[in-house]
Amino acid sequence: MCDVCIIKAVKDRMLSRRGFFTAAASVGAATALAPLGAPAALARGHGAVADLTHTYDAEFPTYFGAPGISVEQNFNFAEHSFNLMTLTVNEHTGTHIDAPLHFSADGTSVDEIPVGDLVAPLCVVDIAARAAGDADTQVTPDDLRAWIAQHGPIPDGACVALYSGWGDKVGSDAFRGFDGEKQHYPGFHIEAAQMLIEETGARSIASDTLSLDHGISPDFATHYAWLPTGRFGIENLANLDKVPASGATIVIGAPKHRGGTGGPARIFALI
Amino acid sequence: MCDVCIIKAVKDRMLSRRGFFTAAASVGAATALAPLGAPAALARGHGAVADLTHTYDAEFPTYFGAPGISVEQNFNFAEHSFNLMTLTVNEHTGTHIDAPLHFSADGTSVDEIPVGDLVAPLCVVDIAARAAGDADTQVTPDDLRAWIAQHGPIPDGACVALYSGWGDKVGSDAFRGFDGEKQHYPGFHIEAAQMLIEETGARSIASDTLSLDHGISPDFATHYAWLPTGRFGIENLANLDKVPASGATIVIGAPKHRGGTGGPARIFALI
Repeated sequence: MCDVCIIKAVKDRMLSRRGFFTAAASVGAATALAPLGAPAALARGHGAVADLTHTYDAEFPTYFGAPGISVEQNFNFAEHSFNLMTLTVNEHTGTHIDAPLHFSADGTSVDEIPVGDLVAPLCVVDIAARAAGDADTQVTPDDLRAWIAQHGPIPDGACVALYSGWGDKVGSDAFRGFDGEKQHYPGFHIEAAQMLIEETGARSIASDTLSLDHGISPDFATHYAWLPTGRFGIENLANLDKVPASGATIVIGAPKHRGGTGGPARIFALI
Repeated sequence: MCDVCIIKAVKDRMLSRRGFFTAAASVGAATALAPLGAPAALARGHGAVADLTHTYDAEFPTYFGAPGISVEQNFNFAEHSFNLMTLTVNEHTGTHIDAPLHFSADGTSVDEIPVGDLVAPLCVVDIAARAAGDADTQVTPDDLRAWIAQHGPIPDGACVALYSGWGDKVGSDAFRGFDGEKQHYPGFHIEAAQMLIEETGARSIASDTLSLDHGISPDFATHYAWLPTGRFGIENLANLDKVPASGATIVIGAPKHRGGTGGPARIFALI
């Protein structure tokens, strides 16, 4: 089969499947198969994968400052011929998901995030230069408009990620930037979240910092604007400097413990 | 750009990147970008995603029979304006990874599994009809040869999964099949594992049952043949009936806690 016939056959399959699965998804059935949130990008093909996930341990910085994971070894190879650990983990540790339930009374839990939202077009908004001089800076509607002017509309189903450069600071106090009273790192301005809700079909926002809100936020305004709408968030994303501003597909390996408010995730970008 | 030009451009990019990244990987550098383990499949494009992950809770069946997760709610929305849980999790619970370290003294831990092995061609070996009549059945070299005769060689980097139909039994005692003395469910025969090691470039095997070995195994022979070689395993895979025997790409969201022997994972098939 020639290459162009393959593409056409795939596109035909996708169009017919999207119609089927859109209908199925709207019925609310727990379908195992979901239309890809990034059909155009994935149809184009990919050649490399970037790991957007930090390795984490008890030293990984957390919002509250206390260790987010402890590990107990239950079996060791010398005595038992295999190794096995039990983990005690605060859900909001490491590269992790904020499910709608995290900031709502009874929103979607992490296991119920629609699968179609977990494979998405990735839009990376670069504020690293500005953030280098101002740790409290936020992604604004103007930043989003500048991205759109350069790359086109934000696709339906997108994950919109902010790249601040903070990923490189993970092993230092600068990641949390605590001054004794407040934390200092970038985040999304509430107006940027509102613009994404009102004007786009984006389904998730992601930060390479500890929070969707900037560190000095007194009220988690962006969390409260975003999560109760049924959209979700990702925090502590890594390696955003390795992915293009537009065109990559993010695959969000959200954990699937029942009823969770979020949890450590394994996240890749297909480029 | 015409479709065939896109494919050719992608293939050229992949070939040049593969050369670059193969060299980088052999240097042993911790590269964030890795060549895809399934370049041909991903170049062809995808239209749908299947979730191969079970939702899990304290009732999810485990090898030893005890609950594998407990959840403590630390903050609730009514009192604190947000929800947050702490999880206590046995690594080998739910749809999960067996890292090489699980069955070796100091093998690769789950966070160190090469990223290129986590996006892989998926080969599904269907033994469901036989398993319906014999819960102790195993995937044998003959099963692998039959798959190869039908679908061609097992690709480099592949994940070879057994489909036994056990995924449908998760909520019942039949999943563990415990008779008072032994558990009963399918797995891989050690000779199948050895054939994959000696004759293919497969990097992982996966079961839709509790174990890589069949339930009555007295000695975990397949675990010991496979994991110490630096290859990894997946257990409790879901929805394998939703994916084709050949051609899908599995994206394995292995957890990334430092030094782990495995852990609950979020796993997708791109079809």
